[in-house]
Amino acid sequence: MKNQKVASKTTWVQVPKNSDFTIYNLPFGIFKNKRLSPRAGIAIGDKIVDLSVLHAEGFFSDMHLPDDIFLKDSLNDFIGLGKNVTRKVREKVQYLLEEESAELRDHQCRGKAMVNRQEAEMLMPVKVGDYTDFYSSMEHATNVGTMFRDPDNALLPNWKHLPVGYHGRASSIIPSGVPIHRPKGQYKDPNMDKPEFGPSRRLDFELELAFITGKSTKMGDSVSTKDAEDYIFGFVLFNDWSARDLQAWEYVPLGPFLGKNFASSISPWIVTMEAMEPFRTSSPKQDPEVLPYLQCEGDHGFDINLEVFIQPENGKPSKVCSSNYKYMYWNIAQQLAHHTVNGCNINVGDMYASGTISGPTEDSFGSMLELAWKGTKPVKLDSGEERKFIEDGDSVIMKGHCQKDEIRVGFGEVSSKVLPTKK
Amino acid sequence: MKNQKVASKTTWVQVPKNSDFTIYNLPFGIFKNKRLSPRAGIAIGDKIVDLSVLHAEGFFSDMHLPDDIFLKDSLNDFIGLGKNVTRKVREKVQYLLEEESAELRDHQCRGKAMVNRQEAEMLMPVKVGDYTDFYSSMEHATNVGTMFRDPDNALLPNWKHLPVGYHGRASSIIPSGVPIHRPKGQYKDPNMDKPEFGPSRRLDFELELAFITGKSTKMGDSVSTKDAEDYIFGFVLFNDWSARDLQAWEYVPLGPFLGKNFASSISPWIVTMEAMEPFRTSSPKQDPEVLPYLQCEGDHGFDINLEVFIQPENGKPSKVCSSNYKYMYWNIAQQLAHHTVNGCNINVGDMYASGTISGPTEDSFGSMLELAWKGTKPVKLDSGEERKFIEDGDSVIMKGHCQKDEIRVGFGEVSSKVLPTKK
Repeated sequence: MKNQKVASKTTWVQVPKNSDFTIYNLPFGIFKNKRLSPRAGIAIGDKIVDLSVLHAEGFFSDMHLPDDIFLKDSLNDFIGLGKNVTRKVREKVQYLLEEESAELRDHQCRGKAMVNRQEAEMLMPVKVGDYTDFYSSMEHATNVGTMFRDPDNALLPNWKHLPVGYHGRASSIIPSGVPIHRPKGQYKDPNMDKPEFGPSRRLDFELELAFITGKSTKMGDSVSTKDAEDYIFGFVLFNDWSARDLQAWEYVPLGPFLGKNFASSISPWIVTMEAMEPFRTSSPKQDPEVLPYLQCEGDHGFDINLEVFIQPENGKPSKVCSSNYKYMYWNIAQQLAHHTVNGCNINVGDMYASGTISGPTEDSFGSMLELAWKGTKPVKLDSGEERKFIEDGDSVIMKGHCQKDEIRVGFGEVSSKVLPTKK
Repeated sequence: MKNQKVASKTTWVQVPKNSDFTIYNLPFGIFKNKRLSPRAGIAIGDKIVDLSVLHAEGFFSDMHLPDDIFLKDSLNDFIGLGKNVTRKVREKVQYLLEEESAELRDHQCRGKAMVNRQEAEMLMPVKVGDYTDFYSSMEHATNVGTMFRDPDNALLPNWKHLPVGYHGRASSIIPSGVPIHRPKGQYKDPNMDKPEFGPSRRLDFELELAFITGKSTKMGDSVSTKDAEDYIFGFVLFNDWSARDLQAWEYVPLGPFLGKNFASSISPWIVTMEAMEPFRTSSPKQDPEVLPYLQCEGDHGFDINLEVFIQPENGKPSKVCSSNYKYMYWNIAQQLAHHTVNGCNINVGDMYASGTISGPTEDSFGSMLELAWKGTKPVKLDSGEERKFIEDGDSVIMKGHCQKDEIRVGFGEVSSKVLPTKK
């Protein structure tokens, strides 16, 4: 499929220039509004196609879908029908939205089927059973290792042999728009005699991308790198909120806990594997050679432009980072093959974040920890204000899109405001 | 409530001597059998009280329960009704089972309501949203620190200031009786030049107890040590299966992953907080003093005798460990207060394991790693066979019970057999 030329398409829906939600994209999400209970939709331009309306009108009648499949508060059951079904639904909607297709455009249900995106509230697209966070950017791991350990041995011995990962908290994954409270906790800076307690003083974002599985396995079974992408339904942007002071004190020897589990924010539209296909690219060469179960053929990297903005209360957003997903050392096929090689079972709706996506240049680092280099080089915002970490009232906004010739496929954004610690 | 004298009770059900499931216990579980779909029950002696039958017959009519509350495949919805309800249901069943109560004993539904435990298959009692594993036994943390780091500084600096914990895998928690496959993975022993791949050569159990929350919180909210027990529904035995060779190679810097997430086994009956009340005991003195949010009044430890047996294929069980839950340095109120102090939200059905429960003596260590001291002191089974770790065909059986005067409250067992690596 690599580098195939995508057939040019136009749509009868008015799609603003530079919209992430083109006819090439058609991501799935769950939305509601004042009139409508939670339901499944597909984004195009400033509209949402209400899939439950299309289904009720018989547009999917050849697919034998359950009657209420698009009237649930998560996509899990739909995704669980398998790629044969989800691909057909997306292709059917793509066909219906094409310039030449009159079936929906001229149908009496059109007004009901096309909901204004501005009037919709986006909910979590899936119910996340388990959430895993990887650590797959060599630049990020090197930066952190340099700051906290030894610049000459920044990467730990296992790092190039396996995609390091750990389990995170599923309950606190929230969609874009939901504010978070600054976490409280214990910290002990090197200059303190004993730990102290209070609101985190080093609240940080982590720019990540997450994939969502659409197929389950049984305990004891493994997924090969060759089959891995069959298990992956799509991607969202992922902000892995981190309290660096809590994390630094708590994380030995069992890993991050309270420094991470207070919140993770995601973009609400799942961009499908099918939509990502034109943006496949090679990944960094792996040296030393990895063990056979991690070797894979073909390209499993994706060229996705990523940006992070900080917007102070009552201020304007300033861009603080431009990175790209293609820098990742470990790819999704390797991540999933590793995750299941021991027989760990996975479920539909499980989420797997990439780890902070840092690039090679200083403006491409995916966290404040790295951008402000442990607080030593404050980041200047457009207003002249400076930031070492995230302050109360700040919103952190992450955006991502792929572009190739005239074809654009984007994620929209994940935006979340930081409120003061809850009393 | 401490050290209250529990009123002596007798029951018309025949309860074998030394049964864990006395009229003082009455744990909740989900069972099915050839004739019956999954449903909620209470264990007594060799019987299960089918709560759906009692409900249909109107025994709980004053409690306004949903009609299908006991006909679900998990207890989450029931537990979520709150302790006022779950306590009333348990007390009503206790009353109905008392020697003097004729209402159920002489009711025409008795045959249907009292199911033989031997004919039932026990399922997962709850759907686990998130699973957390603590590391709260000082003896265990000291043993591990001594073996792998520095005998003079076995405990890491944070250990006595906070209950160290991390997130584990919820999808692979299974009930007693379900066999597990030996996991495969990467390992690199100190004598190897590079990592190798294969079935784990150091498969281990960890003797733990887990509590289950029965009440949810919102993001940003915290639970105090004072309120913590209101959020806890009950306990199960927990075998935190561990592949020591995988774990040792992968765990820096983000904690255990494939070394743990292939399986965790639990006992299927949830022993309620109410049933545990008579066995409350003090915990080890904490020095240095903990931060105010971790301080608590009263006793939150429990005197629970714990045992581990290894049963080779076609052999008899040999006891390899006798420990006690009262040794835990960090108690459940502190664990839950710490977990939520940063605003991490919790849900009904979430599970929180204690960490390996090791006591002060060599026969009270809660893992093979410690019992056989890193393979240097093989454990002798009754048959004369030796074990450094767990072998294919072995079953690991954990049991737990409390005893005070004539009152016994027990957990039954969690038993699981190890099968060879799945091809």
